[in-house]
Amino acid sequence: MAVGDTSFPTMHPVKGVRLGTCNAGIKQTVRDDILLMAVEPGGSCAAVFTQNAFCAAPVTVARQHLSQAPRWLLCNSGNANAGTGPRGMSDALSSCEAAAQVLGGELHQVLPYSTGVIGEPLPLAKLVAALPGAAANLDEQHWDRAAKAIMTTDTFAKGASERFEIAGETVVITGISKGAGMIQPNMATMLGFLATDAKISSELLQACLANAVEKSFNRITVDGDTSTNDACTILASGASAAPIIEANSAEYEVFAAALNKVCKRLAELIVRDGEGATKLMRIVVEQAQDSAEAVQVAKTIAHSPLVKTAFFASDPNWGRILAAVGRAGVVHMDLEAIEIYLGDVCIVRQGGRADSYTEAAGQQVMNQAEITVTVRLGRGVAVEEVLTCDFSYDYVKINAEYRT
Amino acid sequence: MAVGDTSFPTMHPVKGVRLGTCNAGIKQTVRDDILLMAVEPGGSCAAVFTQNAFCAAPVTVARQHLSQAPRWLLCNSGNANAGTGPRGMSDALSSCEAAAQVLGGELHQVLPYSTGVIGEPLPLAKLVAALPGAAANLDEQHWDRAAKAIMTTDTFAKGASERFEIAGETVVITGISKGAGMIQPNMATMLGFLATDAKISSELLQACLANAVEKSFNRITVDGDTSTNDACTILASGASAAPIIEANSAEYEVFAAALNKVCKRLAELIVRDGEGATKLMRIVVEQAQDSAEAVQVAKTIAHSPLVKTAFFASDPNWGRILAAVGRAGVVHMDLEAIEIYLGDVCIVRQGGRADSYTEAAGQQVMNQAEITVTVRLGRGVAVEEVLTCDFSYDYVKINAEYRT
Repeated sequence: MAVGDTSFPTMHPVKGVRLGTCNAGIKQTVRDDILLMAVEPGGSCAAVFTQNAFCAAPVTVARQHLSQAPRWLLCNSGNANAGTGPRGMSDALSSCEAAAQVLGGELHQVLPYSTGVIGEPLPLAKLVAALPGAAANLDEQHWDRAAKAIMTTDTFAKGASERFEIAGETVVITGISKGAGMIQPNMATMLGFLATDAKISSELLQACLANAVEKSFNRITVDGDTSTNDACTILASGASAAPIIEANSAEYEVFAAALNKVCKRLAELIVRDGEGATKLMRIVVEQAQDSAEAVQVAKTIAHSPLVKTAFFASDPNWGRILAAVGRAGVVHMDLEAIEIYLGDVCIVRQGGRADSYTEAAGQQVMNQAEITVTVRLGRGVAVEEVLTCDFSYDYVKINAEYRT
Repeated sequence: MAVGDTSFPTMHPVKGVRLGTCNAGIKQTVRDDILLMAVEPGGSCAAVFTQNAFCAAPVTVARQHLSQAPRWLLCNSGNANAGTGPRGMSDALSSCEAAAQVLGGELHQVLPYSTGVIGEPLPLAKLVAALPGAAANLDEQHWDRAAKAIMTTDTFAKGASERFEIAGETVVITGISKGAGMIQPNMATMLGFLATDAKISSELLQACLANAVEKSFNRITVDGDTSTNDACTILASGASAAPIIEANSAEYEVFAAALNKVCKRLAELIVRDGEGATKLMRIVVEQAQDSAEAVQVAKTIAHSPLVKTAFFASDPNWGRILAAVGRAGVVHMDLEAIEIYLGDVCIVRQGGRADSYTEAAGQQVMNQAEITVTVRLGRGVAVEEVLTCDFSYDYVKINAEYRT
């Protein structure tokens, strides 16, 4: 059950970046399940990958190929090629080689991505057989098809697109994402694929992407789990008329702001599609000593099953929020200095329930589908925000009954 | 729904330690809800408390009184006196003062404990009115009444008792515990109250208790939350005929082993009473570089909602266990060296599904109510075990619907 506005937006095409999809029959019999993305020669590429020590074979290969001027991204849904041992590595490399042959390039110019069931061998023959079909329909207009081809248990296609000006010239950043839990039920992965026609070096693009991901995809949680296959990748074609973007420039700021916006929307859409979610919660921690402390407190609240079940029940159970703040590991926390708000309603002040608080006021906020929880630590000026969703019967149902 | 053997055992009385209970009507109208424990003068006392930064008022007071030769413990259920600000501190102190008056002692000789609803003022007058009743029935035989008086949403009373010999003389350790989630739904707390007739200094008893708690109550998790009120306390009367227990002696080893056993059983009973639990899982991590690493991996698995829902569904979903190991934060983990067993069945070897594994064999283990998951890291010789339970519809139900 998706929460709030999840509409697929107008996707501005990115000059110099084409997308092609096809049905390989990996798990889907009708819907396309492989995606090729192609950037014109001379473009740049940046990517960030899962921190899980057991990353899937395609992640290992994509990491290795990233520095070798990638031209193509190849993604399949339905199979994660994770926990597949030496065969998994061989399959990931073979899929790149097959794509390179079809596309007239080299093996190392292809970055592979997989999402789906863990521990099953990749059906390589099916994937290879579908590559010519995907290559044949490469087109700048195919963002909607691409968003659908990477879905696993997602209930809607996820896209975001920004058009802005650099030095008077139009530049575009467009992207898609997938994911409905940090790990799907035996399925895996959050994936993001973005593209821009800006001119920007791979090094600067990498720094810009790492920043944007830190503030977007790394600020969401559905169940606290980190997939073996998570990846977010951006291709830059340089096809726009705008001048090259240099570090520390005003143009860089404009570009970075747009990239942040696209990444934030793509990340938010994943939470809105959270397994069993009925509510979207923004956990805002203010007045922290530093950003790390703010994130730590926000994530402790966002991960608490007790907080999440209370939100599912629309129960303004502030004791659970306060207890989560208390166990977040922040040293020398002063209970007296802490304030907690549900929406605009102050519920905790000076270590206890605020005098002004009424259960009716708290209940009114809790009945909403999108709720902001603000925690003021009274220790500094750092602010961070983490998005999460509630914990419902359907979360248990989806995750318990997936294979039955 | 309790898992497995949860029977209340024969509780060996502890010479020199008496227990009295009474109904104060704090939340219960029929069942006793306050407990007094008294140790004869000259006894010793040790305690460990929650690490939550926002500890409840009684925890703050008990910490202060611990070093002042405590004679009495006073515990109420039904109200946690947590998140109650300055009034909470005043109420905790007043309850100690009232008990001291009834018992003929000093305020600082009483350690207070509370468990129940967070954020509501302690009904001090009711508690005080019931103290004479509890004092009047102080008796060495009342461990069963005591175990019931400290229950909140526990579904059964929890006790453990060991009798052993030191220098040919009989010594007893008997204890009770409560808790059915690290935090109950708006209720709080794991509590343990133990007593022994051994002669042992408070300093040595404190070291021995800290060790025992680290390997028992700190090795269980229901939902990963830490209460504001957690406490485990032991009184030693010194009334046995056995000689005083010295540090680094063979007698200390015997005493420590018995204390560990009682604490482990009391902790295990809390997991067996886990909210909505249908299964008990022992997560054993072997071949770790050190104990901290083993605990870290075991707790990451034990906290994973995806692992816990898979166990609820009896689904041998090893990909989720592998992914949890991978995100546990252990540096330079070697996927190839890892082995994972469900019971005696090897499911993961060399980075993938074991060749010998069959879904039928995995399913057979998963159908059991008590399951051991063994993870061998191939990095060293350290071993640690964490107990947890599965994650069911009833967990969500209990925690979502508590106040409705």
